[in-house]
Amino acid sequence: MPSANNTIQYAIGVDLGGTNVRVGLISSKGKIIHSLKAPIPKKRNRRTLLHHIADLIQESLDWAEQKKIKVQGIGLGSPGVLSIKKGIVRQSPNLPEWVNVSIADYFKKRFNLPFALENDANAAALSEAWIGAGKKSNSVICVTLGTGVGGGIVLNHKIWHGHNDGGGEIGHIVVRDQGEKCRCGNWGCLEVYASATAIVRYAKNLLKTNQTKSILRTLPKITSEAIFASARKKDKLAIKVTQHAAEMLGAGLTNLVHIFNPEMIVIGGGVSLNQNLFPPLRAAVKKRCFPQLTRDLKIVPAQLGDHAGLIGSARAFFLSKN
Amino acid sequence: MPSANNTIQYAIGVDLGGTNVRVGLISSKGKIIHSLKAPIPKKRNRRTLLHHIADLIQESLDWAEQKKIKVQGIGLGSPGVLSIKKGIVRQSPNLPEWVNVSIADYFKKRFNLPFALENDANAAALSEAWIGAGKKSNSVICVTLGTGVGGGIVLNHKIWHGHNDGGGEIGHIVVRDQGEKCRCGNWGCLEVYASATAIVRYAKNLLKTNQTKSILRTLPKITSEAIFASARKKDKLAIKVTQHAAEMLGAGLTNLVHIFNPEMIVIGGGVSLNQNLFPPLRAAVKKRCFPQLTRDLKIVPAQLGDHAGLIGSARAFFLSKN
Repeated sequence: MPSANNTIQYAIGVDLGGTNVRVGLISSKGKIIHSLKAPIPKKRNRRTLLHHIADLIQESLDWAEQKKIKVQGIGLGSPGVLSIKKGIVRQSPNLPEWVNVSIADYFKKRFNLPFALENDANAAALSEAWIGAGKKSNSVICVTLGTGVGGGIVLNHKIWHGHNDGGGEIGHIVVRDQGEKCRCGNWGCLEVYASATAIVRYAKNLLKTNQTKSILRTLPKITSEAIFASARKKDKLAIKVTQHAAEMLGAGLTNLVHIFNPEMIVIGGGVSLNQNLFPPLRAAVKKRCFPQLTRDLKIVPAQLGDHAGLIGSARAFFLSKN
Repeated sequence: MPSANNTIQYAIGVDLGGTNVRVGLISSKGKIIHSLKAPIPKKRNRRTLLHHIADLIQESLDWAEQKKIKVQGIGLGSPGVLSIKKGIVRQSPNLPEWVNVSIADYFKKRFNLPFALENDANAAALSEAWIGAGKKSNSVICVTLGTGVGGGIVLNHKIWHGHNDGGGEIGHIVVRDQGEKCRCGNWGCLEVYASATAIVRYAKNLLKTNQTKSILRTLPKITSEAIFASARKKDKLAIKVTQHAAEMLGAGLTNLVHIFNPEMIVIGGGVSLNQNLFPPLRAAVKKRCFPQLTRDLKIVPAQLGDHAGLIGSARAFFLSKN
């Protein structure tokens, strides 16, 4: 975010995933100046994981110093349950040792720089709303379809965090009140029907209970990518699976539209790369929603791909300064 | 809202219902100083309806003048589809002549006072969040159970209106993706299962398909009030109906909790007077939601009853000044 005199500023963004850490030097215009990526060591504990991340940050800071770039601070996007203002990671399903880590305190001390923590899905949403698909919109809801369904709610260019920093759990809104059990303990969650995992499960079920010919029967492994590739080749069963995903996701997005009346919904994650998904998805939403709410609603794929988390983490830092 | 020097200010609030108009002089502390109520004339057109409201406002202004109270402006809560910033009522199902009425222009000219338009459900939510059940909370979601299910989303003490002023349509979030048709054109909406109308319908169906003894069989007319009164008398069928309403509403509230992680959900409307509803409702939400989101969530009945719309309309005016 430009300062009052409009000079460009710089921050370190850190995107902590389940398997990799990305660290980058990001400008206040959202440009990646320099970036690093390293796998998260399989053998680790809380201390070594923090050190590992810190070493990458140091490398990025050293690079900036060499180039005489002044770094204003650090933003980190982490999965899991967070206390954002306190800068604490409470727990994280994919990083079991990541429990009650006062991550802000650690990094502030280590680098003597201001630090902002953000949820990883929120960071991705922030970047899409900032310089990605939603850059011209005031209210952007991001939905990420992967192993699960994640989300981030950007209202007036900022994340809505909620009372305990737990808002934006879009994957766990109920679309089928008597539906299947979700891994979260709830049942009938959007995630059960619209995640990449759910799409593959639905296809496998159809293949089992159905005699229709399908390219999918010839594949050694059925993935969501394979399903979408087959749909592009007009495979009937694959088209049916895509249609079902669009309808279930459409029910979930209807809830977001009726609640927020947003300008834009951005769909991220691997599934969103399937362009075949968008026409039936938009139709499903239009069929359900009040016409005045879909009149100029845009439902579009995310633009920043793998970079979203990195850029968004830096954005979270820039926003935290205001 | 107190001005900088903390003196109390005054505004006219107008609550336009389907059958009555209420007009009141409201202080910036949320106190009703004076109020009037009159039925909406059955024989009317757009012009006579505007005149009718204006006459009541004039009466209230005259009263204020007599008491030497300076009125800062007027806030009006209207049902229907609105353009809030432009001050136009686009259409309203209960007031068929209320189509594309530039209500702000009319009243500004007539009274030479600033004017703010708000949706009636939003006005009710604003007042509950201001001086009612939610007065200590930062984020309050209001859900009103009546003929339909309405709502208002108060984030950081202000209504979230959405891109086309159409947000907060909580009654039309999908809880059963293959569910019954709703009058809005969508299907499986919360309103189909949790409105007063839906509760009566569910009870009648149970009575038809079920041989269980019930007080309800002895009544000339089954209303939601009668169902709740019977539940209080331990009538098994009435308890079952209450339980069902709680579960369906619980699914809807789960969506709001997972999306907003609010501090408080306020339930308004006649149904909410049924204290029996709250224990199973809270249990239903708790069963479905992430534990950290319900840890200190309050689900409580509205406090302002019939006054909510009136006070909230004035509040909308006070907020519009900032």
